[in-house]
Amino acid sequence: MTAPAPVTGTSTAVAWRRDLHTHPEVGFLEFRTASRVAGTLADLGWDVVTGRAAMVAAQRLGVPAQPELDEAFARAVGAGADDRFVGGMEGGHTAVVATLHGPRPGRAIGLRADMDALPILETAGPFHRPAREGFASVWPGAMHACGHDGHVGMAIELAQRLTADPPAGSVTIFFQPAEEGGRGARAMVPTGLADRIDLFVALHLGLSLPTGTFTPAIDGLLANSKLRAVFHGRSAHASLAPQDGRNALLGAASATLALAGLTRVAGHDTRVSVGRISGGTSSNIVPDFAEVLLETRADDGAVNADLETRARSMLHGAAQMHGLGVEVELIGTVTTARADAAAHDAVAAAGRAAGLRAVVPAADSGVASDDATALMRRVQERGGTATYAGLGSDLAGPHHTATFDLDEAALPLGVELMERLIRG
Amino acid sequence: MTAPAPVTGTSTAVAWRRDLHTHPEVGFLEFRTASRVAGTLADLGWDVVTGRAAMVAAQRLGVPAQPELDEAFARAVGAGADDRFVGGMEGGHTAVVATLHGPRPGRAIGLRADMDALPILETAGPFHRPAREGFASVWPGAMHACGHDGHVGMAIELAQRLTADPPAGSVTIFFQPAEEGGRGARAMVPTGLADRIDLFVALHLGLSLPTGTFTPAIDGLLANSKLRAVFHGRSAHASLAPQDGRNALLGAASATLALAGLTRVAGHDTRVSVGRISGGTSSNIVPDFAEVLLETRADDGAVNADLETRARSMLHGAAQMHGLGVEVELIGTVTTARADAAAHDAVAAAGRAAGLRAVVPAADSGVASDDATALMRRVQERGGTATYAGLGSDLAGPHHTATFDLDEAALPLGVELMERLIRG
Amino acid sequence: MTAPAPVTGTSTAVAWRRDLHTHPEVGFLEFRTASRVAGTLADLGWDVVTGRAAMVAAQRLGVPAQPELDEAFARAVGAGADDRFVGGMEGGHTAVVATLHGPRPGRAIGLRADMDALPILETAGPFHRPAREGFASVWPGAMHACGHDGHVGMAIELAQRLTADPPAGSVTIFFQPAEEGGRGARAMVPTGLADRIDLFVALHLGLSLPTGTFTPAIDGLLANSKLRAVFHGRSAHASLAPQDGRNALLGAASATLALAGLTRVAGHDTRVSVGRISGGTSSNIVPDFAEVLLETRADDGAVNADLETRARSMLHGAAQMHGLGVEVELIGTVTTARADAAAHDAVAAAGRAAGLRAVVPAADSGVASDDATALMRRVQERGGTATYAGLGSDLAGPHHTATFDLDEAALPLGVELMERLIRG
Amino acid sequence: MTAPAPVTGTSTAVAWRRDLHTHPEVGFLEFRTASRVAGTLADLGWDVVTGRAAMVAAQRLGVPAQPELDEAFARAVGAGADDRFVGGMEGGHTAVVATLHGPRPGRAIGLRADMDALPILETAGPFHRPAREGFASVWPGAMHACGHDGHVGMAIELAQRLTADPPAGSVTIFFQPAEEGGRGARAMVPTGLADRIDLFVALHLGLSLPTGTFTPAIDGLLANSKLRAVFHGRSAHASLAPQDGRNALLGAASATLALAGLTRVAGHDTRVSVGRISGGTSSNIVPDFAEVLLETRADDGAVNADLETRARSMLHGAAQMHGLGVEVELIGTVTTARADAAAHDAVAAAGRAAGLRAVVPAADSGVASDDATALMRRVQERGGTATYAGLGSDLAGPHHTATFDLDEAALPLGVELMERLIRG
Repeated sequence: MTAPAPVTGTSTAVAWRRDLHTHPEVGFLEFRTASRVAGTLADLGWDVVTGRAAMVAAQRLGVPAQPELDEAFARAVGAGADDRFVGGMEGGHTAVVATLHGPRPGRAIGLRADMDALPILETAGPFHRPAREGFASVWPGAMHACGHDGHVGMAIELAQRLTADPPAGSVTIFFQPAEEGGRGARAMVPTGLADRIDLFVALHLGLSLPTGTFTPAIDGLLANSKLRAVFHGRSAHASLAPQDGRNALLGAASATLALAGLTRVAGHDTRVSVGRISGGTSSNIVPDFAEVLLETRADDGAVNADLETRARSMLHGAAQMHGLGVEVELIGTVTTARADAAAHDAVAAAGRAAGLRAVVPAADSGVASDDATALMRRVQERGGTATYAGLGSDLAGPHHTATFDLDEAALPLGVELMERLIRG
Repeated sequence: MTAPAPVTGTSTAVAWRRDLHTHPEVGFLEFRTASRVAGTLADLGWDVVTGRAAMVAAQRLGVPAQPELDEAFARAVGAGADDRFVGGMEGGHTAVVATLHGPRPGRAIGLRADMDALPILETAGPFHRPAREGFASVWPGAMHACGHDGHVGMAIELAQRLTADPPAGSVTIFFQPAEEGGRGARAMVPTGLADRIDLFVALHLGLSLPTGTFTPAIDGLLANSKLRAVFHGRSAHASLAPQDGRNALLGAASATLALAGLTRVAGHDTRVSVGRISGGTSSNIVPDFAEVLLETRADDGAVNADLETRARSMLHGAAQMHGLGVEVELIGTVTTARADAAAHDAVAAAGRAAGLRAVVPAADSGVASDDATALMRRVQERGGTATYAGLGSDLAGPHHTATFDLDEAALPLGVELMERLIRG
Repeated sequence: MTAPAPVTGTSTAVAWRRDLHTHPEVGFLEFRTASRVAGTLADLGWDVVTGRAAMVAAQRLGVPAQPELDEAFARAVGAGADDRFVGGMEGGHTAVVATLHGPRPGRAIGLRADMDALPILETAGPFHRPAREGFASVWPGAMHACGHDGHVGMAIELAQRLTADPPAGSVTIFFQPAEEGGRGARAMVPTGLADRIDLFVALHLGLSLPTGTFTPAIDGLLANSKLRAVFHGRSAHASLAPQDGRNALLGAASATLALAGLTRVAGHDTRVSVGRISGGTSSNIVPDFAEVLLETRADDGAVNADLETRARSMLHGAAQMHGLGVEVELIGTVTTARADAAAHDAVAAAGRAAGLRAVVPAADSGVASDDATALMRRVQERGGTATYAGLGSDLAGPHHTATFDLDEAALPLGVELMERLIRG
Repeated sequence: MTAPAPVTGTSTAVAWRRDLHTHPEVGFLEFRTASRVAGTLADLGWDVVTGRAAMVAAQRLGVPAQPELDEAFARAVGAGADDRFVGGMEGGHTAVVATLHGPRPGRAIGLRADMDALPILETAGPFHRPAREGFASVWPGAMHACGHDGHVGMAIELAQRLTADPPAGSVTIFFQPAEEGGRGARAMVPTGLADRIDLFVALHLGLSLPTGTFTPAIDGLLANSKLRAVFHGRSAHASLAPQDGRNALLGAASATLALAGLTRVAGHDTRVSVGRISGGTSSNIVPDFAEVLLETRADDGAVNADLETRARSMLHGAAQMHGLGVEVELIGTVTTARADAAAHDAVAAAGRAAGLRAVVPAADSGVASDDATALMRRVQERGGTATYAGLGSDLAGPHHTATFDLDEAALPLGVELMERLIRG
């Protein structure tokens, strides 16, 4: 096969969104998604950079192990990956940066579209439209539960429209892998591909904003640190010689409870979460191994750094308590960033022109992290302006849960907003 | 294929042991092992009962899920299972009971040979003979780390010898699945196949006894209860709405620490162990699910029952603490049993006649559990006598660890002991 | 003795502050403080209400036990309590409400001055001025570490000034016991003494504001709930029969770790703290009793109520885990309140007139709770206006620590501010 | 006063027992008890060694703080301490060693009588004879709940009998302080007073043996280690600046749960117990201090040493987890000891001669620790023989609980046994 079969549907954005929703790929495994994106953009005549040229491999964090990479690669190849591009993505080099150069000089505009799914088993319940209408995930255990399928869908439709009537200046779309966990954008920064962007916008769907609304700038994005701790103990027969064992799960349990109690910080918004524990095999063997995944977040980089330091102490203390060793690895990290007034205003104008209503997020709507901030900061350091904007979409279930579903009516609105932004 | 390819080696026992060591199958998945045992014994002319006739399916505990059963079955079929018998074992009905009826009336003797391996990744280290000599597990994650491969090997060689010169009375060998976890013997009891046994002996290799020694009766086998607890929480985005989540891992962690502190009982030997925790996917999703495997043991059934009751309270209390639900399932249980003096004396005489030295286990050698006690108790209830005996074997590493290896010189000694026991 | 010996010093406010600093009395034990306040105000000709007339006894929370009440009462009597008033305060009825009626009609102004100290052992270090200059606490284990000594000192000097030249309307000072823990103001509300106040101001020293500044309204005061949990177990000899014991400390420990991990709430400022554990006697007796003091806080009453509910579940779950009983008692609670614009403006004007600089607290300065909110809400419900204002004072050490000390230069500034507020 | 008022009652043993039960004194505070013992023995003409001559002060462990020593001393002086001896006991030097030299040469026999009470609040319930009959503790919080009052009572009556008709050889009674916690005997050993004993017997009441029975030798006494850990954190206002605090109670809680889970040891009888936690003052102050009392025990000194080492690691790990410091102090330790056959036989003969029935303790009766083992080992090292014997006494409640009461009918039986032992 050379080019992937065309995606069909009521609109390009919706059709792509549904196709990707059916084939969700988690961070650094977006072989099918990224290769088809690259192929489509190349076919439209955009300059396309992929693979190791679009990301510095060593800067990635939390890359899956080789067997997982291989399995996902094979699966993607069997499910319609674009074989003109997928080869260069082997090993998890799944970034795509595509640029359209306009007929006249003008602003260099950058947009971010993240591509990765989440390790969630999608619900099959009767109220879940993807299940009802047949575009639920066919790959159990992975799910687009944060709207990135919509982000890519909008970007593709936008690219089609721009191709038809190229604007002045340039438009670069950063199709980013591994946004979840804050592991991908950081590897795209040192390529320099964002260095000459004048105006950078990352637009995210959902975020408690209703369909028809938008927020020109979401500030307060949280810095975060994602850690993987592995406790090493000593196995033994749990009955014949328990005293010879060092139970790695006790380290995981002590650490988990301590981590949950990581201090609140007056005047700052913080988070901590232990999201996975895995260790041991059967009850009669003292487990010599336990893995713990956790994260800290804060609305200030220094505060997050302090929380990370304390979390590491907790992990080491827990190991000492139970006679264990422990290794702690940083598998993802995201910084904070603030919107520029100029970028805010540009998006505000574009949104209103697109018929959307500008809203301020509710005080209690919660904030998250997004490693688009790494690209934002780079653009800002080089003299450009940037913002992180929200595009309203009613949701069927919360972000990162098995019942998440977005309102596809939001997709054309987002395309419109971005087109108006670009065309000024 | 009709009959499996013959096993070769320095002796039948060693050859079989090495073949099984290479192909370890955990509890209720012993499709290759059990079918080849059944075929071999049938070919020798023994009466062979297998499948649902050899065990009451509903009495089994902790049967693996269907996909795991199917996968193991397919693997066994591809690796030399005996297709005359393997079909009847589908779904995890892997018990085999084989009887040789002698030419004259006499005692009905029963022997137990357990067949299952453990979920351990075998070491590939240079000091590990199975690795060095090429008979290490080819199925990663499963390992004969308790000597059951030797048990089966000895039983097969014994059967060959007995077939050549049948003794008076009868000899029945109970090839038992799923000894680990105490999940298999209990299902064989209600078939009645042990009801007419006069003398029942379960002989276990290793147990800190050196090669060349034996123990006619190991008392103090511990009763145990194996529990599987599943905590149910509620998932949420760990940053956007942590307050909406109920983290199932917090229940697992609190319970694990509490369980480790389950009371000691003055005057009784007890154990408690949490052997596995598994829950959650990534750090930014509050996990809604966590599984915990644990066990209690005691040298007295009532004490163990009390510990199990307390453990269940801990699990339920931990759930309440963190706003979770919890389900607790008994996945294995073993009772205690005591040797009869007559059975002790019979094994003592046979061991000495076989040139072995009778020893008393060291006070600090530790004791375990074995669901052979379920068969022992049944034999005793019906008027027979029984004992649980130990056969010395130097070990390269402790039971239930990745470096476990037995001294194959012990195998002919065990065959000799059992033959002398039978021939009286 | 009839009237207490007069306090001397550079100013009335400072002299009183130092005298009270030397004789700190914790919540509901302010017998010396309150009786001397009442006596002084009565001698100035103010209308003074004390004891059960100034507070509804049953509405108090966390009243100390009788022996503690008796001991503190006796100590106060021996240290200069005013015997005209102290008798009516027995049992912890230590509120004083004093009113000056002016010569002409006018606004009814209410001020709050809290009187209680904290259970902290004051430092004797060389950098601590109270120690250096001889006015450190003479009652070890109690300390004015939150500035309430200054609040009373300012109120007394203000009363002297007002008496000399009475303003129109009325001025009522609510000398409140047991602010710490949120246990006293709530009992003063149902007396109705605050019902006719037109403008109510609670002025607090410190709070990270430098000397010479003030804040007309501190919003975001946290609602809180203070809980006392008592775990009941069963004692036993820790070696002879550990299994008969139910260790109450295990409940306390499990609960403490769980409580520290009480969920963060997106969009809300929350707190949780376990501040005291006490249980058991010696290591060889399984303890049958453990007490835990804890608190939750949130910037929203409903959020705090949810946290309190979850905390109670944790306590009950911890009890169940370890076979214990538990009783949970609410020993203090504070609500939130918001300043009225009119009250804000009145204080702002008065502060500026007094030469102070109005500042906004730093975003990360932290917020606390204060049960002045109970009085504020009552005033507001009856049609008056209210605010909680901050008076800057450089601090030697943080609030609620052993090195706390305020800058006495702030005291005359506070008196000036309040006088200007009253005189309009 | 010169000599204490005489004790009256149905027998000397019972009268003394009741007097001491009324005036219980915990370890190293036995000023009244020890001085009266010394005075009584001196009046009988025995050689009496007390104070620093009877114990090496620096070898004591867990001596109470000076204020506690002073308060108890004053209380004892006010409650009938013998002023001829009490002065030399100041500071907690409360050992008494009394010797009767017989008219002819003969064996040197040593007996141990421990004198200390426990920090338990005695029940006032209607079923408790001391309460009903008026000899319950008048010192709340202290209680003879292990029978030491009976031990002293028997020893005094025995001394009277022996004085009346002195046997050959010598009899030395070691009235030992601070048996609870294993803190006193170790300080008596280096005085050399036990060095020339030929036969040493420590006789303990109760221990699940019914009245009328005895056990000549209780083996399996557990070695133990008593630890006091103090966690140091940093205090802060729990709401204004929680991030500045380091909550010492979190260290105590994490350590407590970990300690409860200290490994069982196959083949050995072990114990672990956390018996006291104390820290913090109020819920709104992050506590900077927490004390934990704990103990480990094992039937083997090396095993106990390993448990102590692991416990210390747990304490240090818990401190690291929560950013705390920790100091760990050994406040008591007891070794194991085994009875000599000769000593066993001598007690066995004496008991039978006294009409008692020799019994073996039930397997599940539990074992404890007793620092009489320090004296036993010293006697054995110097060539003598020793045993730890049990004297049956029905009990109203278990040892170390608030309802403990012994059967006084056992006291004359014990006196008889010891007299027959001495007279041979």
